[in-house]
Amino acid sequence: MLSDKDLDTIFRSARTHNSWQDREVSDVTLQAIYDLMRWGPTSANSFPLRIVFVKSAAAKERLKPHLSEGNRAKTMQAPVTAILAWDSRFYDRLPELLPHNPDARNWFAGNEQHAETTALRNASLQGGYFIVAARALGLDCGPMSGFDNAGVDREFFPDGRYRSNFLCNLGYGTAEGLKPRGPRPDFDSVCEIV
Amino acid sequence: MLSDKDLDTIFRSARTHNSWQDREVSDVTLQAIYDLMRWGPTSANSFPLRIVFVKSAAAKERLKPHLSEGNRAKTMQAPVTAILAWDSRFYDRLPELLPHNPDARNWFAGNEQHAETTALRNASLQGGYFIVAARALGLDCGPMSGFDNAGVDREFFPDGRYRSNFLCNLGYGTAEGLKPRGPRPDFDSVCEIV
Repeated sequence: MLSDKDLDTIFRSARTHNSWQDREVSDVTLQAIYDLMRWGPTSANSFPLRIVFVKSAAAKERLKPHLSEGNRAKTMQAPVTAILAWDSRFYDRLPELLPHNPDARNWFAGNEQHAETTALRNASLQGGYFIVAARALGLDCGPMSGFDNAGVDREFFPDGRYRSNFLCNLGYGTAEGLKPRGPRPDFDSVCEIV
Repeated sequence: MLSDKDLDTIFRSARTHNSWQDREVSDVTLQAIYDLMRWGPTSANSFPLRIVFVKSAAAKERLKPHLSEGNRAKTMQAPVTAILAWDSRFYDRLPELLPHNPDARNWFAGNEQHAETTALRNASLQGGYFIVAARALGLDCGPMSGFDNAGVDREFFPDGRYRSNFLCNLGYGTAEGLKPRGPRPDFDSVCEIV
C-alpha cells in the first residue's frame, strides 16, 4: 500500500495546471512516463493508445490554430503537450500483442463500431494510466478536451488512421492560474454496494 | 516522485488476476478506492462514472448469466465485482460540479453524440484512476470487457440512464491462473516526439 504522501501526489493533492515553470521535460522523462503507463491493462491487450509529444516550437505552432481560445496560451507555454490518440486499426497488432489467441484480430476487423468503441474505451483507460504515471514521476498535468479534433487529425495524422482523443500539457506547474478545486460527488450519489 | 517499489505496485508488477484468496473486501475499502479515484481530472469536471459494487451472493447471481463463459468462474469467486458504468445524463449534474460556468450543461444537453463520446471517454479515464487506486490500496484487479453489456444494463440499470462500460473484479489475488504477461509495444512503435 502506498503512503499517504504518495496518494496525495497521484490523486488527492494533484491539480490540473494552467501555468508552467521554465523547466524542460527531457525526452528520457517522456520515455519514463511511457515505460510505466504501458503496463496498465487493456482489453485483449489491445493497446490502442498512440502518443505524439509536441515539444518543439515548430510543432507547437502546428497545434496552435486547433486549440480552443481558453486553452491556447497555457498550451503554448507548456514544455510539452501530448496528443493522446487511438489507432483505428489497433487490431492489426493483436497477433503480436495477444499471441496465444490467433483469432483475436477477427473480433474487431470488419466490425467498425465495435472496434471504435473498444479503441475509445481502452485508449481513454490508458489516458488515466498516463496521467497517474506522469504525476508519479513528479510532473504536473493539464489534460484538455477543448480543441478541434478534426483539425489536429488533419495536421498530425493525415493518413486518417489515428484519431485524437484528448490533449495533456506536461511540465512542472506553478500555482498561478489554479482554479478553486471542483467539487466531487459523494460516494452515495454515484456508487452502490449490492 | 514515487519509490521504485510503489511504481511496481501500481504499474510494473501488477497483474490481471484470475483467482482470489478467500478474504473479504470491506465496504470501507471500497469507499477508500472511491475517495482516491474521485480526485482524478475529467473534462469540465463532468464525472460521468457510476459504480455498482456487486458483493452479495444474490447480486452475483444476477450478474452471472451476462458474463462470457471464460469470465464466469473467476468472477463468481471474486470477493467483489465492480460494474463501471456511465451516466448518459451526466450533464444534469454540471451546475453542481462546475458551478463557475452555468452554461456548461448546454454543451451536452440535446447533443447526444457529443455527450456519449464525452461520457465514454471520461468514464473510461476514470476507470484508469479506479484500477490504479485499488492497486495503491493493496488490492488486485481483474478488469473485463467480456460480458453482455445490454444484459447487464437491463438487470442493473432498468431505467436506461446508466450504461455499463466494463467490469472489474476486486480482491486479493493468488498466483493461480496467472497468464504469461502480454508483451507491450516499444516506445518508438506507438510514440513520437516532435
